[in-house]
Amino acid sequence: MITAGIIGATGYTGFELFRLLVKHSKVELAWATSETYCGKLFSDVYPHLKGINDMILKALPEIQQDQVDVVFCCLPHRTAMSVVPSFLEKQTKVVDLSADFRMGTADSYSRWYEVEHSCPRLLGQAVYGLPELNRDLISKASLVANPGCYPTSVILPLAPFLEKDLIEETDIIIDSKSGVSGAGRKLSLRAHFVEINENIVPYDIGRLHRHTGEIEEQLSNLANRQCRVLFSPHIVPMERGILSTIYVKLKEDISQEQALGIITNRYNDEPFIRVLADRLPETRFVQGTNRCDIAVSKVDGTNRLVVISAIDNLLKGASGQAVQDMNLMFGFKETEGLQ
Amino acid sequence: MITAGIIGATGYTGFELFRLLVKHSKVELAWATSETYCGKLFSDVYPHLKGINDMILKALPEIQQDQVDVVFCCLPHRTAMSVVPSFLEKQTKVVDLSADFRMGTADSYSRWYEVEHSCPRLLGQAVYGLPELNRDLISKASLVANPGCYPTSVILPLAPFLEKDLIEETDIIIDSKSGVSGAGRKLSLRAHFVEINENIVPYDIGRLHRHTGEIEEQLSNLANRQCRVLFSPHIVPMERGILSTIYVKLKEDISQEQALGIITNRYNDEPFIRVLADRLPETRFVQGTNRCDIAVSKVDGTNRLVVISAIDNLLKGASGQAVQDMNLMFGFKETEGLQ
Amino acid sequence: MITAGIIGATGYTGFELFRLLVKHSKVELAWATSETYCGKLFSDVYPHLKGINDMILKALPEIQQDQVDVVFCCLPHRTAMSVVPSFLEKQTKVVDLSADFRMGTADSYSRWYEVEHSCPRLLGQAVYGLPELNRDLISKASLVANPGCYPTSVILPLAPFLEKDLIEETDIIIDSKSGVSGAGRKLSLRAHFVEINENIVPYDIGRLHRHTGEIEEQLSNLANRQCRVLFSPHIVPMERGILSTIYVKLKEDISQEQALGIITNRYNDEPFIRVLADRLPETRFVQGTNRCDIAVSKVDGTNRLVVISAIDNLLKGASGQAVQDMNLMFGFKETEGLQ
Amino acid sequence: MITAGIIGATGYTGFELFRLLVKHSKVELAWATSETYCGKLFSDVYPHLKGINDMILKALPEIQQDQVDVVFCCLPHRTAMSVVPSFLEKQTKVVDLSADFRMGTADSYSRWYEVEHSCPRLLGQAVYGLPELNRDLISKASLVANPGCYPTSVILPLAPFLEKDLIEETDIIIDSKSGVSGAGRKLSLRAHFVEINENIVPYDIGRLHRHTGEIEEQLSNLANRQCRVLFSPHIVPMERGILSTIYVKLKEDISQEQALGIITNRYNDEPFIRVLADRLPETRFVQGTNRCDIAVSKVDGTNRLVVISAIDNLLKGASGQAVQDMNLMFGFKETEGLQ
Repeated sequence: MITAGIIGATGYTGFELFRLLVKHSKVELAWATSETYCGKLFSDVYPHLKGINDMILKALPEIQQDQVDVVFCCLPHRTAMSVVPSFLEKQTKVVDLSADFRMGTADSYSRWYEVEHSCPRLLGQAVYGLPELNRDLISKASLVANPGCYPTSVILPLAPFLEKDLIEETDIIIDSKSGVSGAGRKLSLRAHFVEINENIVPYDIGRLHRHTGEIEEQLSNLANRQCRVLFSPHIVPMERGILSTIYVKLKEDISQEQALGIITNRYNDEPFIRVLADRLPETRFVQGTNRCDIAVSKVDGTNRLVVISAIDNLLKGASGQAVQDMNLMFGFKETEGLQ
Repeated sequence: MITAGIIGATGYTGFELFRLLVKHSKVELAWATSETYCGKLFSDVYPHLKGINDMILKALPEIQQDQVDVVFCCLPHRTAMSVVPSFLEKQTKVVDLSADFRMGTADSYSRWYEVEHSCPRLLGQAVYGLPELNRDLISKASLVANPGCYPTSVILPLAPFLEKDLIEETDIIIDSKSGVSGAGRKLSLRAHFVEINENIVPYDIGRLHRHTGEIEEQLSNLANRQCRVLFSPHIVPMERGILSTIYVKLKEDISQEQALGIITNRYNDEPFIRVLADRLPETRFVQGTNRCDIAVSKVDGTNRLVVISAIDNLLKGASGQAVQDMNLMFGFKETEGLQ
Repeated sequence: MITAGIIGATGYTGFELFRLLVKHSKVELAWATSETYCGKLFSDVYPHLKGINDMILKALPEIQQDQVDVVFCCLPHRTAMSVVPSFLEKQTKVVDLSADFRMGTADSYSRWYEVEHSCPRLLGQAVYGLPELNRDLISKASLVANPGCYPTSVILPLAPFLEKDLIEETDIIIDSKSGVSGAGRKLSLRAHFVEINENIVPYDIGRLHRHTGEIEEQLSNLANRQCRVLFSPHIVPMERGILSTIYVKLKEDISQEQALGIITNRYNDEPFIRVLADRLPETRFVQGTNRCDIAVSKVDGTNRLVVISAIDNLLKGASGQAVQDMNLMFGFKETEGLQ
Repeated sequence: MITAGIIGATGYTGFELFRLLVKHSKVELAWATSETYCGKLFSDVYPHLKGINDMILKALPEIQQDQVDVVFCCLPHRTAMSVVPSFLEKQTKVVDLSADFRMGTADSYSRWYEVEHSCPRLLGQAVYGLPELNRDLISKASLVANPGCYPTSVILPLAPFLEKDLIEETDIIIDSKSGVSGAGRKLSLRAHFVEINENIVPYDIGRLHRHTGEIEEQLSNLANRQCRVLFSPHIVPMERGILSTIYVKLKEDISQEQALGIITNRYNDEPFIRVLADRLPETRFVQGTNRCDIAVSKVDGTNRLVVISAIDNLLKGASGQAVQDMNLMFGFKETEGLQ
């Protein structure tokens, strides 16, 4: 049994994490903080919990002395990096759900996030928390940078092909469709029902979205050479789920069966990856799960391969993966609390 | 004032056409047929109309003698071609909303629709009803093949670039997202609220969807050489609207401004094309209109151009365009009844 | 041809009014104001309009000198009453869409809106803008108080029965279901897609909602005695539309046919009321229209009558009705611009 | 550890039951049948399960010999009664999710379901499976009639007041709003996304819906006198959830606090009832749970009480309650597999 805390617990990822941790058989949730709602009950913010779990939300300063084994940091980008170091100093392990520790260098961080990184030395120490790629490193890590939702939906389906040097690394086109919860819980007219209902909203088309940098860095590590992607995110009128349709060019001709075999073999033993052979992923099939569904479609008479993935953006794309990382960091069964 | 009839009027496109025609100042709607509901009131099928328009739905044989100036045929693919010729013989003009007269040759038709075409001689006579490309031909046509919804959303934004030979014609990737009404009104579990709500459904990925043939044929005509596309349609949980995100490769380097200029100049005088310079298309912006919104995004440091379009699939993607075609065929103002 | 202005034009009702007025054959829209967006184009706020109508939004002080024939005031409750009088003084007619001039007395206003009314003398002068009840008064009015959306959906179906003294005036139970747009466009977590999707939200159950006062005052006028209602509004996950299910007790036994006859006779000549005899109202049937659909259901073996109505909350419940009022005030055809 | 079977497993309630039973620590699911899909994998019907649980669906005759401890019957009304007796004869306990064993007498059954009951002797033996009312009887039952979704949402909130003879038993008005999944998975145009999106559909208003009979019978048992209700169901555009707003008349004046106290005391120890004191139920708060949330609102200055409840129609309204019943029938912890 370990003790855990959640910083910034009242956003959608914080709430999802809360639900996972209170049911987790190896974890006792010691506290949860909120800047906006501190002093109130968690169940005032999420009435689902009323009478079921009425934990009082703390302010961050209140819990600084309160030693726990692991902290999940759900603060926004640029804020997390000012909070995480003090916990590491006290030997508390940290899973950070922001982007602050995902980039390999302070330079790439400042390029995409437009501020200086305040503790660049930790960037080398942080492990990118995608268990299917970095299982061993995560197991030994003190600081895990939980991957972004879009990057998770892209890196997992492409990894098997990049590792085998099968696809052109500079001609990768990613068309992602996401539910509205990905934008978080802060007030925004764009998140209003009347604005997003009956609408599809493309944004940051090309190389503008910050996740581009994260995706390219991880793909480049896998390919051992510089990858470049064209990443086009879209919001669709649903609550949760990401479907990524990825268009790549094969370096050598392989068949549909071979493509499927490569991805199947790579993820054969993975508890949270499902390769679909006879149908395509849909977000409903993964809703409420920590799973990534993947399918491939070789386009006849061309060297094009279409790779399609679906995840629940709040689980495998955020809080579920964070728990999976924690399970590895503490030697628990990897699927504990996630099924 | 002309008289018009609608064959197969109780599907979503038929109903939309009905609404447009009863408000059209130059058209008197003489009859509407339905195989399923003949003998009933149109307003029994669409209670919106009850007491407002209680036209009785006819059976097709009933109206054969009843001469009108124009017939809109909303029958399914493969059925339309057995009905259209008899109207043409009586000098009735026809706008056919099925795919039966969209392909240039009987061979290409049978390749994509898997049956022999029953009146191949009409294929040469039919005009592809995209006014922005074929305005003059449509004006003189007796038989107009109204374009498919997806093809409309693809051909319009690509035409300016293909006409100028600016893009690689064999490396065109189309990622389209459509609302549910595109599948029509026939009973289908996939169209049930519970199945499509909170879901994104990719289908016919690659070169499997029939609209691929229609798109390639039209693009090839524009480019004067064989075009090949990779077309990936997706259903998203909304009622109407198509957003197409199209990835092309430039043959020569042009800037964002140049790309925008090309498309703006091409469509400068078009009443139903809107080029967006400082934002991206969204389906809400065109809902209920006969408009196609278009934007381009040149990807910095690459030869990639992303072209994005949005239409209302039931209007510019079907019935609105059919009325626009009719306006041309009868010398009415092109925008009559469409604003 | 008259000239018109809209104050507070960028909310949902303002935008709907804008769309109606720019298409209205007898009206020239002279200006539209917005506190938040003044100086910007209307089409920056609603990109649907970009390139189609790029009117610049004014600040309220800018237009004070600019004489128009009619002003539509879409300001919030409590703000409208400070703006309306100055227009009336200049002989400009006013349709006020707030609640500020709906109540008969300053006392009842301050009871429900919890502030003193700043110009109580205008309350006697303002006409409650429900054309089906007050057509003649509206025709002669300088100041029309446009009814609330819920009250419109309640008063219209009950009027025929109250006028004939057929129902118990103190046992009226109103269960209303509204789409999200009724809450307006101001930022609100409750209006976020993720909060209202897959949710039904009852609120202000009993006698708490402000529309209770408006409903009771109007029903009492109709009945010539004090009416009391129990009003329960609910938000459901859709954009627009109100369905009100109203439970009343009959003073004398009448049959289903008689009940239907009463309501049919009362509204026989009304262009915007549709009485349904063989099916129940649904909000889709009135979406995008200025119509109120009504049905009645006598409950066998009881003295209970259920009266059901459906309106589009932004049209018959707000902006459509405001235009209907304007048509009356200026002697235009009542349906002008509304079909 | 017991063994269980599901008859008619591929509808929405069957699937939900399947998900609950495969995770239940005391149950081994032996088989599941489907008339439509027998011979196929369950995961062909619900691809969510693919590779996770690929149980083959059986035909009903195949499993007749296969002895299990409990059978859940998810067949439609009128069909279940022809299947259930044979299992009871083999000492298999049955939880029937249809309406076939919910009514007390063959007369009332045939009045509401318009067919003769084929084994009336079982009606006396069947226990109405609402644990909060019939816990002891359920514990000893061989045949449990699982309550309807609407009745569950009505009986639970009214029981405390009827048991204390506090409300007029012939003036009970129930206005229920349900998500679309309540209509089941059979093909239906009314269940299509395009038909129910942006719509509210009232139906069977008054005393027409079959659940009226079930509700009245159970309420009458509680009140020890004949109750009559006016029940008005509505479909709203969401997937799951029922919110019932119930209007009753108090026989004696009690305060808000007293009303709240009565309901709180009655359900104090109930694991699946939550009484809300300071907010109203919303369907999101109970989604995915087996809980019924209840609130009351005394209307000032009247003898009216509004009682509001929310359930997940597929859990507390169907399959969750069925598992709760099974837990009681086999002496398991009542909440086993339901949290």
